[in-house]
This record gives sequence, structure tokens and C-alpha cells, in this order.
Amino acid sequence: MSDTREQILEQIKEQGELVRQLKASKESKEKLPLAPSSEGRAMSTSVGQQLKAQQQQQLQEQQQQQQQQMHKIDEEVSRLLALKAKLGGDAAPANQKFTLKTPKGTRDYAPQQMTLRQGVLDKIVQVFKRHGGEAIDTPVFELKEVLTGKYGEDSKLIYDLKDQGGEILSMRYDLTVPLARYLAMNKISSIKRYHIAKVYRRDNPAMTRGRYREFYQCDFDIAGTYDPMLADAECVKIVAEVLDTLDIGDYVIKLNHRQLLDGMFEACGVPPNNFRAICSAVDKLDKSPWAEVRKEMVEEKGLDGATADRIGEYVRLSGGAELVEQLLADPKLKAVPNAVKGLEGMQLLLKYCSLFGLEQSVSFDLSLARGLDYYTGVIYEGVLKAEPGATGSPVKALQNGDQAPEQGGTVGSVAGGGRYDNLVGMFDPRGKAVPCVGVSIGVERIFSVLEAKFAASKVKLRTNDVEVYVASAHKGLHEQRLRVLNQLWDAGIKAEHSYKLNPKLLVQLQHCEEHQIPLAIVLGDAELAQGIVKLREVRTRQESNVTLAELPAEIRRRLQE
Amino acid sequence: MSDTREQILEQIKEQGELVRQLKASKESKEKLPLAPSSEGRAMSTSVGQQLKAQQQQQLQEQQQQQQQQMHKIDEEVSRLLALKAKLGGDAAPANQKFTLKTPKGTRDYAPQQMTLRQGVLDKIVQVFKRHGGEAIDTPVFELKEVLTGKYGEDSKLIYDLKDQGGEILSMRYDLTVPLARYLAMNKISSIKRYHIAKVYRRDNPAMTRGRYREFYQCDFDIAGTYDPMLADAECVKIVAEVLDTLDIGDYVIKLNHRQLLDGMFEACGVPPNNFRAICSAVDKLDKSPWAEVRKEMVEEKGLDGATADRIGEYVRLSGGAELVEQLLADPKLKAVPNAVKGLEGMQLLLKYCSLFGLEQSVSFDLSLARGLDYYTGVIYEGVLKAEPGATGSPVKALQNGDQAPEQGGTVGSVAGGGRYDNLVGMFDPRGKAVPCVGVSIGVERIFSVLEAKFAASKVKLRTNDVEVYVASAHKGLHEQRLRVLNQLWDAGIKAEHSYKLNPKLLVQLQHCEEHQIPLAIVLGDAELAQGIVKLREVRTRQESNVTLAELPAEIRRRLQE
Repeated sequence: MSDTREQILEQIKEQGELVRQLKASKESKEKLPLAPSSEGRAMSTSVGQQLKAQQQQQLQEQQQQQQQQMHKIDEEVSRLLALKAKLGGDAAPANQKFTLKTPKGTRDYAPQQMTLRQGVLDKIVQVFKRHGGEAIDTPVFELKEVLTGKYGEDSKLIYDLKDQGGEILSMRYDLTVPLARYLAMNKISSIKRYHIAKVYRRDNPAMTRGRYREFYQCDFDIAGTYDPMLADAECVKIVAEVLDTLDIGDYVIKLNHRQLLDGMFEACGVPPNNFRAICSAVDKLDKSPWAEVRKEMVEEKGLDGATADRIGEYVRLSGGAELVEQLLADPKLKAVPNAVKGLEGMQLLLKYCSLFGLEQSVSFDLSLARGLDYYTGVIYEGVLKAEPGATGSPVKALQNGDQAPEQGGTVGSVAGGGRYDNLVGMFDPRGKAVPCVGVSIGVERIFSVLEAKFAASKVKLRTNDVEVYVASAHKGLHEQRLRVLNQLWDAGIKAEHSYKLNPKLLVQLQHCEEHQIPLAIVLGDAELAQGIVKLREVRTRQESNVTLAELPAEIRRRLQE
Repeated sequence: MSDTREQILEQIKEQGELVRQLKASKESKEKLPLAPSSEGRAMSTSVGQQLKAQQQQQLQEQQQQQQQQMHKIDEEVSRLLALKAKLGGDAAPANQKFTLKTPKGTRDYAPQQMTLRQGVLDKIVQVFKRHGGEAIDTPVFELKEVLTGKYGEDSKLIYDLKDQGGEILSMRYDLTVPLARYLAMNKISSIKRYHIAKVYRRDNPAMTRGRYREFYQCDFDIAGTYDPMLADAECVKIVAEVLDTLDIGDYVIKLNHRQLLDGMFEACGVPPNNFRAICSAVDKLDKSPWAEVRKEMVEEKGLDGATADRIGEYVRLSGGAELVEQLLADPKLKAVPNAVKGLEGMQLLLKYCSLFGLEQSVSFDLSLARGLDYYTGVIYEGVLKAEPGATGSPVKALQNGDQAPEQGGTVGSVAGGGRYDNLVGMFDPRGKAVPCVGVSIGVERIFSVLEAKFAASKVKLRTNDVEVYVASAHKGLHEQRLRVLNQLWDAGIKAEHSYKLNPKLLVQLQHCEEHQIPLAIVLGDAELAQGIVKLREVRTRQESNVTLAELPAEIRRRLQE
């Protein structure tokens, strides 16, 4: 920590005043009614209805303002407490008064979200395994030097760990650099691996747009020295299979080639040392109109206006094999070896994609640039198409809501990747390269799309798999319940009960209906005396008697129906 | 960072000399022959055999020494580079020369390990779901204040993040405190949740004993206000089911009660403000003999010798319901309300455990204390029994090998937990408590046991699920391969091929045998002309002709056989 005690005290003093002001405003706001009072609800509908609607709108607006302000206050308070903690050491008060929240840009996953997420990940893993993928895992942090110099301008977004003595560590920023480190360290020259894990970016999260600082990546990569485009085309196929299996709407997979981009820049007259900067400007075309991107090129990056205009001609082109033909005949491009190589690569890739039945799903798009420095060949991006007519379309819901995806820009991008042939070599002491191509599925965005879909459909997702609830019809049966539960668990049946000694029967049956548990067993002394229990189908409420001995088999039979 | 530029330069200067010395010794070692030369291998066997064996032993010893020394050097170099990086900022050299390693105390999981791990976790999740568990997830870091004051002495092991502006964060130390924060923050008063995720402890890892700084925890907890011991007994049942389903050897689940421990300390004459310190001494009884623990109590913690001896009498006791009876009649204990309450709790727990069929699996053990501060009631620990006679027993392999488990002490402890009724209340602004009881499965230890078992059995675990390999019998067939692959993938069949245009048939078939792929399709012009391919069973090497149209169905039929 570079803060000295004095500096911290200074800061606390300065911020103290602001916090006091904000708190005062918070308290005055808190005195406002937050919801219609119970008296309000009891008013006769004819009189109250309209008044209520007006009140509610007003209240909602007030609440929104208040929430924004409270959020500001919370952040200030939390900052202040952190500063205090620095001074006071680790001893905490018995009952902390700090804001209960997750760190900025992060969130918890509740059971409902976990169920959805697990469903998505299972489907994606199925696709990865269909293509021979093997799983690996790496630590959540790396030596800082491993990440240094890999992310260009974005390096400033890396989370560092505090120097507590020993090695200097940083949180992983993606799963690609750790893969390259893993391959170089273990001298692995070929692998098809997938890796699903969280990565960390200290971005200024536009939380309203749903960009997170901790988010899942879901990567498949093919490493090895192979013939051109065979592995690359399979990665494109994998993107298509994932988007098909998740059924989240129409999509297009945009394709481009870094060598072609470089060749095009060269043909347009961009100085070579400006290629990466201009490339990162082109990368913004999915969010910004050409006029703005051109402005960045000319005003910020010092490009000649005529050069920018020549680039502008190219980046508006997209199409298929015929566009490749057209560009191969383009006098400016065919004079530049890099451009020709890139175009020939695209030609081969498009041919393989059509053999994989992807002709209608891919689009060669010269405006696709992708941000990361390490790409050297093919790049691609899977983009959800907007459905302008459809109400309640997930994409539309996202554009209006605050559940939008994590990685910048348009709502549509849900997968991306490309070839990076030099990254592993950066880690090898002798610079031995292992060519790689891979794809990253934007699962956070996909979760968001599906969450919006579910919210719209009002379908209640089950968050547990309980098959049978064991209930007591009257008091004094808890030991019997435990015996029956034990029998069911030992038979592999998913079962639960109330953890009360004498729960009410109605409460128990309501629990079953609320949690969509298909079967209930009702225990009663009279039946137990004959070695019998009641088996109830929760949905139909039909009951029948079953002997204890036949219970597991009968339950299995019912569940299979 | 508290290091100033001057201090860092100082350190670099000091360490520079050491590194130079170590490097010099490394280089001189590197000149030694590392393996028998090719001439050596070509020697006639009768003359060379014995010489070779001697040479090899010598070489192995040298290599071991060398490795140890190189490891030291690597650590120094890495430290030095880290210091340099601090001075030089983030700019990295084009080709880094730093040590390629994972951070101290962490490791990568290779595909083989991931396969094993996934198998273990799937089985555990099945048990959790059988008991109605729902999954949640929380961020990998928390506001530092969330963790402060929860772990007693162990707080020093918490990883902090660097202050990069904004909130002060720390890596989670376990999954229990984040659960408590989650429940308080969302005002949830009852849940059965499981959570499987990595946690972080900046322990000085005895790597040779396999203790890690990043390791998996696998937790199931029941939160809610319920009748005594019903949820607690179910957690014990879950431990038993997990250990049964994983089939890793005989085990015992030790049970004790924090209230009884406190009551016992009181009865023995320990001053109340010394309870936690004495409890943490008792916790060491699984690693250290009584004499040492007594010494710690008397010499470090200032306990009266006679008091320590009275404790010594109790902590050697273990048994079942009869021991509870005996202690309830104990004159010293029955005078202390805490002791009586703890014993009555144990009585009920043992009764429920016997209804769950666990009479032979549990043992009431007064030496069980468990480290964490937050337990308030029942505590338990699942321990693998040593199998002294059995050669190749996993436990034994671990004791000798360097693959031992992550959490201290004896090899045997593979699960633990207990009741913590006050933790959630520490987060609630009004102190509202949510009673909780839970269990954590020591999966790292279990992975280690199973890894040792697999290494001993020499069974090769498959790390991918590929069902069919698509091979070319001769040149020029890569487009045909892609067509067939596409047909298989679209039918949901797991298939792969060589990413070479013209691979050799032998190489392709060897790949199938090495990777235990059950089926191969061999394409040839002659067969393709008739719309036919050869389907080969890799194990038996039997081939038969199948039409392309029938291929997916035929493959499915073969796989089911």
C-alpha cells in the first residue's frame, strides 16, 4: 500500500463530509412511504384504484432516485470503512455495520440462476466432447509476469494480488494465456482442450448493461501443427453447434483474417507501426458508426483522411466466396502478399465451412477485427441477429433491461475466437511455437438471454430434484419418517422431509406443490400398523396404499410414467 | 506496496550475489551427463548391463540433488524478476526468461486428473441432490470486511488483493462465510444449498504433503430454524453416503459437541476466557500425542497442570450411546449445565444416526475439537481408517508419497463440519440469526487417494469420449472426411479425425488404439464409389462395410453392444 497513515487520515477527513451529506439525504428519503400502506390496500377498489396507480408511479420514481443515491452512499461508506480498516488492522467489531454486498462488478448466483447456468454449460460441454475435447483446469491466479505484455492496452484491467511476501500474482484475465503457459510449461505440442472457468477484468462495469468484473469463460482450443484451416473450420462448426443446441435465436458467424486486415491496411497506405491501433479502431465498428471510427483514425491516431476513406470502402464489405473472388481481383489488394495470403486462407475456410453445412450461417466480413493482440490468422465472432418484429424477443428485452451481457458492445455477440500461432512461443525459453486456434463462448451473455426468456415465459424452473416428500399425517411420527427416508436414500431415491418434529399436514403438502415435488408419502399410525403408507401424486392429489417393502420399487415405477 | 524504489534496489543487489552463486553451481551441474549417452546404449549387453545400472543410480542421485538446487534457483530468479518488474513497470521483454510455473501452492489439473475429479464431483453432487440440495455460487473474492474476524488466528492466511482504487478485497477462505453473507444479504431464512468451488489459504504449503494454497471445497449446508438434531443427523448421513459411494475404504465419522467441550473445560477448571485457546490445543490431538498437547496447554497457554490432566482423562474417551450415559452420570460434568446440554444433544444425535443405519459408522469422540471459531453445536469429521496390513492401500501410498491431501494433519480426514448458529447473525444489521449446520467434503484429499489408487492399478483413464475416428486409407480424401464427420456430428456422435490432409493410415489407427477410441471409419475411393465405408472395431480389428446412409444408426448399434 502506497498510502501512508497520514494520507489515509486526510482522505477520511475529506470524504467524511461527503458521506455525512449523502447520509442525511438518505435518511430524509427513508422517511418517505416505500410501498402503499396496508390501509391503502384495504381501500375499496372503485375509489382507490386510480389513486393507487398514480401513487405507485410516483413512488417508483422516488424509489429509483433513492436507489441511485443509496448506491452512491453505499460505495462511499464501503470505501471509508476500507480506509478505516487499513488504519485499525484486522480486528473487527462484534457486529459489523458495513454494507452487505458483493464486490463491485460481481454477483451471486441464486439456485434458479445456477439451474439455468448448469443446463447451458452441460449442453456446451456435450458439443466440446463431441469434438474430442479434454478438460483442463489452471489456478485462478498466475505469476504476474505470465500475464504481462499479452493484452496490450487492456493490461490495466488486470487484478493484482497484494504483495504479502513471496511471488507477485495477478488474477487470470482470460483462459487463453493460462493455456499457452500450460502448454509451454509441460512441453505439450498438441491438445484439444476445453476449459470453463471464471476470469477477472477490473473494467469499469456498466452494471446497468450487465458487464461484470468476474465472469465465466467457456473455451475450446485446438493446439498443434496441422494443415491449414482444418482445425479453424472445426472451431467455426463448434460455434454453430453450440448456438444451435442452445436455441437462442438466429445467428450469423462473421469471419475475417488478421493477415488480410494487415494487407488491407498496407494497401490503403497505413504505416505498419499503426496497424494495431487502426485495427483496434476498426474493432469498434460493431458499436459505433463509420463516421465516429473514421474520426478516431484521423484525429486520435493521426491517419491521413484519404487513407481512412480507402479503409472505409473495404470495411463495409461482407459476403461469401464470391466476395473473396472479387477481392482477389482487386488491383490494390492483389499487389500485397499479406492480403493475398489472407484471402486464400478465407477461400479455403469458406470451402470447409460449406462442407460442414455452414454456408448459410457464416459471413466473410471485413469489418470484423477483434480486440486482442495475439491473433495471427482467422478470426470469427458469433452474433445473434436482432429480431425487430418480435415482441418479447430476448435480444430486445436485453437492450431495454439491465440484464445485458458482460462483454462490451452490441447485445448480439455470443462467441468469438481465432488463430494465435505465436502465443505459446512467448513462454517457451527457446521460443518454440505451438500453433493454436480456439473459440470462447460468451456464456454470461447467453445466460442473460435465457434469463430474460424465462422471466418473460413465467415458467418456474425447479431448483432441486426431490422426487418424494415424506410427510406425517399427525404428531409423534418423526422417527418413522427418518426410517422411511433412510430406506429411500439407500435405494438412491431423492427424498426430503420437514425438519420439524410435528409439522402440520397442510404445510407439508403445500411445500410439495410449491416446489413441484411429484410424489409425497403420508405416514399415519393406522397404516403403519399394517406395514402400509399412502403414496400421493402431488399434481392429481390421488392417493393409494403401498406396503413399505414395495415402496422404492413403486416410486421408481411412478417416476418413470 | 510498502517497498520503496531504494529498498527494492537494495534487495536486488543483495539477492543478485546469491543468484549468481546458485546459477554458477547450476551451470556446472548442467555439464554432467544427464542420461546414458547413445554410445552407452549401443554397448553389448553382457559388458554394459551392470555398469549401466551403477551409472544410472549415480545419475539419479545427481539429478535429484540438481533438481532441488534448480528449484531453489528458480524461486530466487522468479523473486528477483518480480522485484525488477516492480521497478520497470508493466513493459515485458519480447521473450520472457522467467520461470514457467504456477504460483506457489497451486497446480494445474491435466485431462487425466480432470476426468477423475469430475467423476468424484458428479457422485458427490448426486448425494447432495438426493437430499434436496440446491446449488449457489458466490464471487471468488469478498469485501475484506466480510472475512474479517471470522477465522481467529488463521486470518493471517487470507489472500488480499492489491488496492488498485475502490473497494478492498480478499479471496474467499472457505465457502461458509460467503454463504452466511449471502443469506444475510438476501434475507433468506431457510435453504439447503451445496456449493463446489475453490478457496484460498496463504498457508506455507508442505507441498511434499500435498497441502495446497488453492483447493476445492465441496459443501452442503442446511440453514433454518428447526427442531434439534434432525438436520444435523442428515449431514452425518450425507458424509456416510458420500464416502460409501466413492468407495475409498473403511471410515469412521467422529462426533462431538462444542457445548460439551466447553462444559468439560468448565468442569475441569479452565478459565472461560481460555476455552477457545484450549479447544484449539485439543484440536491437535489427531496429529500430536497427548504429552505434546498437554505441554502446549501448560507452557504456552498457562494452564494449571492438574487441570490439563483432568482434560486428558476426558479426551481419551470415545464410544457410543453408553458413553453418553456414563458421562451424564459423571459427578463433575453433571454439575455443569453446558456439559449436560451437550450430552443430551449427543444422545439425540446418536439415536437419529442409528435410525439412519449409521450405528457402526459413527463414534462419539471427546478429542474431536475442530479448528474454526464459528461452531456452536455438533461437530463431526469423517476419517479414513488406516489399513495396516494391506499393501498398496491408498492411505498407505499417500503416507509415503508426495501426493498427500491438502488439509493438515493425518492422512485420514476426508470430511468435516458442524453447527454454526451465530455466523449469519454477524452479518445481519439487526443481528437476526439463521441457525446453520453443514458439512464440507475434503475432495482434494479424496482426489489424492484415488489418484494413488489409479497409479497403483496402472489402469489408463480415458480423458476424452470420442466414439469414432474418421480415417483416410489413402491421399486426397480430406474433403470426404469432413463430409462424413459433419454427418456424424449432426447425428450427435462424438467423432474426430487427423488435422493433416494426408495422414498415414497406420498413424491414424495407432491413434485410435492409444486413445481407446472404440470405432474407426476407414474411407477409400473404391468403397466411396459404391456409397460404402469400412467400419472397424478398434479392439478386435474386425472390419465390415456399411453404407454412408446407415452409418450413424450402425455406429449407435455398435456402441450399445
